[in-house]
Amino acid sequence: MEPRVSLITLGVADVHVSRAFYEQLGWEGRETEETVFFQAGGAVIVLWGRAKLAADAQVPDVERPGFRGVALAHNVRSEQEVDEIVEAAEQAGATVTRRAGPTFYGGYSAYFTDPDGHVWEVAYNPGFALDADGSITLPDFE
Amino acid sequence: MEPRVSLITLGVADVHVSRAFYEQLGWEGRETEETVFFQAGGAVIVLWGRAKLAADAQVPDVERPGFRGVALAHNVRSEQEVDEIVEAAEQAGATVTRRAGPTFYGGYSAYFTDPDGHVWEVAYNPGFALDADGSITLPDFE
Repeated sequence: MEPRVSLITLGVADVHVSRAFYEQLGWEGRETEETVFFQAGGAVIVLWGRAKLAADAQVPDVERPGFRGVALAHNVRSEQEVDEIVEAAEQAGATVTRRAGPTFYGGYSAYFTDPDGHVWEVAYNPGFALDADGSITLPDFE
Repeated sequence: MEPRVSLITLGVADVHVSRAFYEQLGWEGRETEETVFFQAGGAVIVLWGRAKLAADAQVPDVERPGFRGVALAHNVRSEQEVDEIVEAAEQAGATVTRRAGPTFYGGYSAYFTDPDGHVWEVAYNPGFALDADGSITLPDFE
């Protein structure tokens, strides 16, 4: 198994509400069969009905509030970009769970949740270089 | 906000148990400060203590069983590869929630959960081409 994620599927209550949220942030979705796809570098982010996703995976779907144990990070190139994105997300209806500020690793970040409670971090991390295409390359931790 | 995921952080009960699971699947982690990083194409998969991740995001951490509303997919180039990976995952201790079989979109896939219940689909989807480096490119749905 190569270390690779092809699709990140977020189970949502209403694909149109969620699509509108992410499009307000500047993404452009493509929809087929009540499923919305966003090309995200070499991967794809998918919005799909939560119940359909659970049924497809054959895992019991019991909706519960609170943290789901997963966070997605969107890394950017400056502190200012963090502030701008968090402001845009808030205007799109996101809940900011942690206001932007310095991080323990010497960076600057904030967290917000999308309409379904999916957790996003927006981060400037000077130790994790971003390529021109947005790819991230791990540093040598030695 | 560019459509891009930089890091996918999986909150886990024990980073060493989870690291061993993913390394048994062939991944090579790099660890610093009780955090394990796997380079995954242009993104990075991170294993971090679930409680630490919740505290960092400032979201209430109430551990609950059941579906978390997120699934990660690992797309491959053949049905045989799906079978091989699912077998390896099961040997590594994964729970197979859906046995490999045909999908509604004309592909072939299976689902398993990792030691913390994170949901993975392993899929062969002839409609979603994989580049040589494993990148996926959305088809034109028109």
